[in-house]
Amino acid sequence: MDPSICFITLGTDDLDAARRFYIDGLGWPPLFEVPGEIVFVQVGYGLTLSIWTADKLDADAGSPPGTSSSAASAPITLSHNVGSAEEVDAVMAAAVAAGGTVGKEAGPAEFGGYHGVFADPSGFRWEVAHNPGWSVADDGTVRLVPVDS
Amino acid sequence: MDPSICFITLGTDDLDAARRFYIDGLGWPPLFEVPGEIVFVQVGYGLTLSIWTADKLDADAGSPPGTSSSAASAPITLSHNVGSAEEVDAVMAAAVAAGGTVGKEAGPAEFGGYHGVFADPSGFRWEVAHNPGWSVADDGTVRLVPVDS
Repeated sequence: MDPSICFITLGTDDLDAARRFYIDGLGWPPLFEVPGEIVFVQVGYGLTLSIWTADKLDADAGSPPGTSSSAASAPITLSHNVGSAEEVDAVMAAAVAAGGTVGKEAGPAEFGGYHGVFADPSGFRWEVAHNPGWSVADDGTVRLVPVDS
Repeated sequence: MDPSICFITLGTDDLDAARRFYIDGLGWPPLFEVPGEIVFVQVGYGLTLSIWTADKLDADAGSPPGTSSSAASAPITLSHNVGSAEEVDAVMAAAVAAGGTVGKEAGPAEFGGYHGVFADPSGFRWEVAHNPGWSVADDGTVRLVPVDS
C-alpha cells in the first residue's frame, strides 16, 4: 500500500449548513455534488474533500468489529484509490497483514466501482477504492463523474 | 481562504501501535518524527499525514465552545497552511465570517510558527497555520524541519 490519500470524507449531520459554509461562505467551487447527499471540493493536487451526510457515510463505511474508540466513531474516512478491483483486494490484504481490521469486506461500491474499508489500530477508517469515474490529470486536477453501478 | 489541505492529523491513544502499523507494517517512510509524540508521513503532493498522541492533539487544537457533536469530538484536525502570520489572521477572520467558530485564537504555535483553529458548522476542526519549517518543492515533496519556538 503506497502512502497516498485521495479523498477525505467528513460526515455531517447538517449538510445544508456545511454547504453554506464551504461553498457559499468560503466560495469553494464544488467539483461535483448530489444535492442533499454529498458535495465534493478539490483541496489539493489530486486531493478531494467530500462532505457527506453522516448517516450515509456510516452506513457505507461500516465499523470495524470490537472497536469503541473515539477514532472509530469519528465521522470521517480517508480514501486510498487504486487502479483496479484486484488492487483493492491486494491493498486490503496488505492492510490486514500490517495489523489493520476489516470494517467492510471488499465488494461492489454504491458509487459504481469496487471498495473495501479497513480500520487502523486506533480505529480510523480507510476506504480502499477503485472508482472508474475518478481520475487525476497531470496538473493534479481531479475529475469525478458518476458511473453506472 | 483557498480550498487547500496540507496536513491531516489523526490523534491516537496508542502511538506505538499506529507506528507499527503505518511505518513497520505498511512500510511508509517517516518524513519526520518525535519518538513517543508524533510521526509525519507524506501521503500526496504537498500533503502530510500526522499521527499524534490524542491528548496532545486535543490540548493543542482546543474545542469550539458549545459543540458536542461527534465531529467536534473526532480526534482529527485538517490543516490549511499559509505564508505568514498575517495570512493566518486573515483566514481565521474569513472562516468566522463564513460561519465558522473559533476554537483557538490565533497566536504563537508550539511548533515554532503561528496558528489558530476554527471549527466548521459540523464541528470539524481546521488549523490555519504558518510554519516556517514547512515547505513544498515544485515536485510536491514536503520538507518539514523543526523551527525554534
